[in-house]
Amino acid sequence: MSEYKQSIIVRCDLKLSRGKLAAQVAHAAVTASDLAGVDAAGEWKRGGQKKIVLQVPDLEDLIELQQTAKQEHIPAALIVDAGYTEIPAGTVTALGIGPAPEEKINKITKNLKLV
Amino acid sequence: MSEYKQSIIVRCDLKLSRGKLAAQVAHAAVTASDLAGVDAAGEWKRGGQKKIVLQVPDLEDLIELQQTAKQEHIPAALIVDAGYTEIPAGTVTALGIGPAPEEKINKITKNLKLV
Repeated sequence: MSEYKQSIIVRCDLKLSRGKLAAQVAHAAVTASDLAGVDAAGEWKRGGQKKIVLQVPDLEDLIELQQTAKQEHIPAALIVDAGYTEIPAGTVTALGIGPAPEEKINKITKNLKLV
Repeated sequence: MSEYKQSIIVRCDLKLSRGKLAAQVAHAAVTASDLAGVDAAGEWKRGGQKKIVLQVPDLEDLIELQQTAKQEHIPAALIVDAGYTEIPAGTVTALGIGPAPEEKINKITKNLKLV
């Protein structure tokens, strides 16, 4: 069986600080992992929680990727920031995809750049 | 009852890229949340997953903070990187503390700087 992996995708147009970006990525990791369910999440955790952080230019691309994940039946969680610092409340910051088998994740994220 | 919060603390001597740092923080968030148990984690998630990313100068300070958390009976997860990129395998990169009631977290992390 394929290894389980999670991809977390962030908008690079938001110009977040390192700490704020990391918090958004962490939020996406926790939420998408819950969404994937205990079997997928358990498999992923036992394998060492393989994850990668990628970027898209803006909100439109992030939403498009969410739709693609939906079509491919891969769990995907869109993160909306509460907006206490740096950005307005309600800003969509990140998308967590998976954990899911690595080849399914790669299929829809292979053209994205690393952060 | 107090709001639940999680603090994730990273070593600033490792000079990680934004993406690598975010992945370590995400790993700490997921692992510490599991360690805290379903009641604390559920409370935290229902409250919006409040989290903050802080820094310490080096490994020694990170270990000391882990010990302090232990003494205060706050769940804390030390993250060891698998070492595929940027840093050698086995490098301790981050510490996830909580979720736990905010005042318990603040008591042991209040003097740390934001990332």
